[in-house]
Amino acid sequence: MSSSNGGWIDALVRPSTVAVVGASDDPKKDSARPLRFLRRHGFKGTVWPINPMRETVLGEKAWPSLADLPGVPEHVYIVTAAERVEEQVVEAARLGVKVATVLADGFAEAGEDGAEAQRRLVEKAHAGGMRLLGPNSMGAANVADAVPFTTNAAWEAESLVPGRLMALSQSGSLIGTLVSRGAARGIGFHSLVSVGNEADLDVGAIGEAAVGLDGVDAFILFLETVRRPERIAAFARAADAAGKPIVVYKLGRSPEAQALAVSHTGALVGSDKAADAFFRDLGILRVDQFEALLELPALLKGRRPDAARRSKPVAVVTTTGGGGAMAVDRLGAAGIEVEGASDALRAHVKQAVGLSLKPARLIDVTLAGARYEVMKTVLDGLLDSGDYAAVVAAIGSSAQFLPERAVQPIVDCAGHDTPIAAAPLPQADRALAMLSEAEVAGFRSVESMADAVRAFMEWRPPKPLPTDPAPEIGPARPAAVLGEADGLDLLDRLGLTTVERRLLGPDDAIPDDIVYPVVLKAVSADLPHKTEAGAVALGLTDRTALEAARDAMRAHLKTSAPGAALEGWLVQTMVRGLGEALVGYRVDPEVGPVISVAPGGIFAELYEDVAVRTAPVDLAGAREMIAQVTGLRALAGWRGRQAGDLEALARTVAALSALALDPDLRVAEAEANPVMVLADGAVAVDALVRFA
Amino acid sequence: MSSSNGGWIDALVRPSTVAVVGASDDPKKDSARPLRFLRRHGFKGTVWPINPMRETVLGEKAWPSLADLPGVPEHVYIVTAAERVEEQVVEAARLGVKVATVLADGFAEAGEDGAEAQRRLVEKAHAGGMRLLGPNSMGAANVADAVPFTTNAAWEAESLVPGRLMALSQSGSLIGTLVSRGAARGIGFHSLVSVGNEADLDVGAIGEAAVGLDGVDAFILFLETVRRPERIAAFARAADAAGKPIVVYKLGRSPEAQALAVSHTGALVGSDKAADAFFRDLGILRVDQFEALLELPALLKGRRPDAARRSKPVAVVTTTGGGGAMAVDRLGAAGIEVEGASDALRAHVKQAVGLSLKPARLIDVTLAGARYEVMKTVLDGLLDSGDYAAVVAAIGSSAQFLPERAVQPIVDCAGHDTPIAAAPLPQADRALAMLSEAEVAGFRSVESMADAVRAFMEWRPPKPLPTDPAPEIGPARPAAVLGEADGLDLLDRLGLTTVERRLLGPDDAIPDDIVYPVVLKAVSADLPHKTEAGAVALGLTDRTALEAARDAMRAHLKTSAPGAALEGWLVQTMVRGLGEALVGYRVDPEVGPVISVAPGGIFAELYEDVAVRTAPVDLAGAREMIAQVTGLRALAGWRGRQAGDLEALARTVAALSALALDPDLRVAEAEANPVMVLADGAVAVDALVRFA
Repeated sequence: MSSSNGGWIDALVRPSTVAVVGASDDPKKDSARPLRFLRRHGFKGTVWPINPMRETVLGEKAWPSLADLPGVPEHVYIVTAAERVEEQVVEAARLGVKVATVLADGFAEAGEDGAEAQRRLVEKAHAGGMRLLGPNSMGAANVADAVPFTTNAAWEAESLVPGRLMALSQSGSLIGTLVSRGAARGIGFHSLVSVGNEADLDVGAIGEAAVGLDGVDAFILFLETVRRPERIAAFARAADAAGKPIVVYKLGRSPEAQALAVSHTGALVGSDKAADAFFRDLGILRVDQFEALLELPALLKGRRPDAARRSKPVAVVTTTGGGGAMAVDRLGAAGIEVEGASDALRAHVKQAVGLSLKPARLIDVTLAGARYEVMKTVLDGLLDSGDYAAVVAAIGSSAQFLPERAVQPIVDCAGHDTPIAAAPLPQADRALAMLSEAEVAGFRSVESMADAVRAFMEWRPPKPLPTDPAPEIGPARPAAVLGEADGLDLLDRLGLTTVERRLLGPDDAIPDDIVYPVVLKAVSADLPHKTEAGAVALGLTDRTALEAARDAMRAHLKTSAPGAALEGWLVQTMVRGLGEALVGYRVDPEVGPVISVAPGGIFAELYEDVAVRTAPVDLAGAREMIAQVTGLRALAGWRGRQAGDLEALARTVAALSALALDPDLRVAEAEANPVMVLADGAVAVDALVRFA
Repeated sequence: MSSSNGGWIDALVRPSTVAVVGASDDPKKDSARPLRFLRRHGFKGTVWPINPMRETVLGEKAWPSLADLPGVPEHVYIVTAAERVEEQVVEAARLGVKVATVLADGFAEAGEDGAEAQRRLVEKAHAGGMRLLGPNSMGAANVADAVPFTTNAAWEAESLVPGRLMALSQSGSLIGTLVSRGAARGIGFHSLVSVGNEADLDVGAIGEAAVGLDGVDAFILFLETVRRPERIAAFARAADAAGKPIVVYKLGRSPEAQALAVSHTGALVGSDKAADAFFRDLGILRVDQFEALLELPALLKGRRPDAARRSKPVAVVTTTGGGGAMAVDRLGAAGIEVEGASDALRAHVKQAVGLSLKPARLIDVTLAGARYEVMKTVLDGLLDSGDYAAVVAAIGSSAQFLPERAVQPIVDCAGHDTPIAAAPLPQADRALAMLSEAEVAGFRSVESMADAVRAFMEWRPPKPLPTDPAPEIGPARPAAVLGEADGLDLLDRLGLTTVERRLLGPDDAIPDDIVYPVVLKAVSADLPHKTEAGAVALGLTDRTALEAARDAMRAHLKTSAPGAALEGWLVQTMVRGLGEALVGYRVDPEVGPVISVAPGGIFAELYEDVAVRTAPVDLAGAREMIAQVTGLRALAGWRGRQAGDLEALARTVAALSALALDPDLRVAEAEANPVMVLADGAVAVDALVRFA
């Protein structure tokens, strides 16, 4: 795969000839770091410092310019001030350099001028067939092959731990956080790349190319936003095909970080839920606890996403009652089912090592003390049973001073189909190092353990690419918002069941064949909030009532909304359902098309009770979404209530989500709200559609 | 205070003469540990090993029995098997020993026989004026004065870190977890006590007595349950008076761990919410992340709970953009308002150190690099402004290798009125040790930092003890459940506004003066679920309708519930509110009387949307509770809706909570459900009351 990328991935993360443009002779300066770090960590290739002002840099010969070098470096790190970057990019591209990394900030993140300057950098780089990392990048640091081509201070360390993880981070400082925390735990890295502003090479492109690197087994991502979701999707699919899992920590859990949006759905589908859906639907495991980012990959090693896993419980075995109870409590709070040992296993343990396990949720071997044979027998029994999705081992004090007792048996179970998550309760650095060396997942905290197990249980393969044809959505009306009448017509074309209705001109007579009772709505693009505007009348039982309501509404609107242009009247048959739902489609600014379903009324908003997936979803996906919405349980026969036709609601969700199949994504937002859920069927009663 | 306890607290945590009954000569055995650990850590007092089978134990003279000792030990640790414990307790009490600790398990936690044996231990101990720690206790380990009188393996460590924290743990193994994790961080302990089964000395009693110890500044508790809440309350009030904060980690977040209860309120007030309320109302800070248990006390040092704090934001200053954003995100998700630097402060920083801070939520000094003067200037400005409740410092790579740059200025701000919470992003052991030494709160993870800041912001003083007289609740009916009629009468006596109603005998004529429309209910103790039983008729608009409904209901019940004894009919005026609420009182099995308020209907249960406080609450407390319930926002003028009389609802909550003032807590459970919230007033329409 790297060859199909013209070799830029090798040039990026394992170049053999590099140059530092703007290398400083002052060892305290950031611009001195790449050269210092390459030397400190024993880079075996060639490095050319470039500094037109000096003969030498840090005791090495300095070159006046890229053009003066005795060869063409594969990878150039430009650490000059922002205003000198472009000329260096031009020069590097001209010379045939494969990758240039740019440290300076002050580009797209600094406003429109910076964005323009950044676009020019990419253009100049591509003109010479060169790829660009950054700007605002702390570089690409390869630990496994000792190419620490970075300005991140963490490489001041005497040594770091090589391994098989690749980290891609939008925050440069975080690569230092990851590598230093990993080193303290014996968790090693192949390489860490600070992607900066992702002007050219982005998380998706680098990740997809790196899937082909033999030295990389798994990826961890630190993201502040999702840029170019389609490239991350390609990366995720390639990684899944190669059996190399991706774990992500993304900022944006808090309301402060959530994007604002116009309509109801917008407000509900905070982009964090959309991001959650995006990762999940691509088989990317999102963690909530930062340390789980480092700790989870070992749990995934050699394993695949698997739907059957979700039907199995987790076993918790412990040598510390209190610590084991903490583990069960955390797992329970994360929605994980914990189950104890079977009668057969308890009999086997009794016979093999003389320990009588209690028939309890927590498998507590404390009575026998922490002994190798006991622990190994219990672990083997649990793992070999095939009854559990994973086994958690919460180890007490022995982990600290006598890891041979309860940690070694875990190490000796490494590589089993069913993974073990080991959580030593005390400070137990040696135990954690033993676990890391054996590639067994070890967790510093019970919180990160439970978070990782949750992510593992929810792991699923990337959603298959849709093969359905694009729906016929009719003429696009750029930037226009469709009212109920046109909106409902569009929903009809998508295959949703919509309410019976008649659209009348402003002065049309009331036809004779209307079936009462009806709802009357004034049609006007100038009245987006009809109920508040007094432009809706409910429960009109006959022609007289309808005519009276129309006259009253016309009079009311003349005074209350004198500027509103009345386009006509919408007369809808009243539908009474067992309950209401809101189904919304939206092109999320970060991750693209998403579909959401929520209960109707105010509770969806009050409780932020909404299920979100990337669109389109099939019927099975829509059913899962509905099952996830707390408020819709009231329609699922909860507490003996009459059940609504949630299968019809699922069809509605799937049908609306097909808007994502339109290659131009002409519809930016479409909301069926409410959808009345009947005992038999689900009917969209109102619609709001906005074109991009 | 210790003298008023007959000196047992000193004998418990800093005895000068001790004995180990059942001390083993085999250094690998748990029963050898107390002697080994006392020697290893340099105990300066006298220790007498007792072992009738040997002349010596671990090279020291062994005594055959307590009676043979040349003196009376202050504290005896009985590490024999369970069956030999009672005789040793009797002997120790006879000799005048002040405290005996019992290691053996197999007592109350093992069933009724064990509970009976445990009761006998306490009886025999008290008969001789002796106090008992355990059974099932790993001992009391004093680190500050080198009295590691414990069987916990963590004391295998060469040395531990003395300090001023006292830990009280229901899990013996957790004292090892705490002391070892603390030592790795430079967080020291005065002592750690494994309270075991709390047969006699419990968390409350030990804590209250230890408040008087000069060497103890703060308490951390690890609890699996709450035993004897009244003693914990006394401890909390004494600790608050002495300015010594208490931080707790309690298991039971997950549904698995929550107590079951009969009625609606029971199901809603899972004991975890009750426990939350209990701690909060006593000024005890509950943490969610385990590491915050160790890290939070430094943030509290020298500070008091303070209502004004909640109105101020938190400032986040950082030398790492990504790490700072993580901190803001976590704080935001925890509901903490984060605010940037004021214009005045930005001007000052520009003038003093030449740094132009952006007008952003995150105070990012990255541009200036990590420099002492910059960091100190910004911190001083933030702290001295008085505008912030706390300052969070998220420190990047410099924390690892150059702590003098950004960590030292934090250390130099120690002791300011406004606390600093420092979170180094990379592995930075030296920085954390510097912070601990200066008694500045340092956090290993952004998650524990945000959790600790949240707990700090929510910290309030213990609720004043109620002074109101007990309400007149009428005759108690032990173990009885009152139906609507009697239940509503009881609510009347408590001062709630209840629905207009008439109670008629089974064959009474319908009176003439009834105001329609009404609701008819069949009164029968045999029909707890009236709606499901067809024993409720709504919307009866006149006498004819009422009579017809009564006849129909009588006929229906005769066939559908032939065994149900019909006591009469309840005719209630129909009340239509703007919304409904559920107000519930309950004596929680763990923490005692609690009051709860939730929205009416199914949503409280679906969304677990309920506010809980210990009872009684005053009007201010009731208002806070109502503001905390998401579903009740719909009644608070949300999105232009008509507002309900939530002040009347608050009066209802406070009035019902007065049941807790009854000294015998005769009412076990009382529920007003629904309470109809009107534009003016709140009316209880139905009631369920259960006596203890």
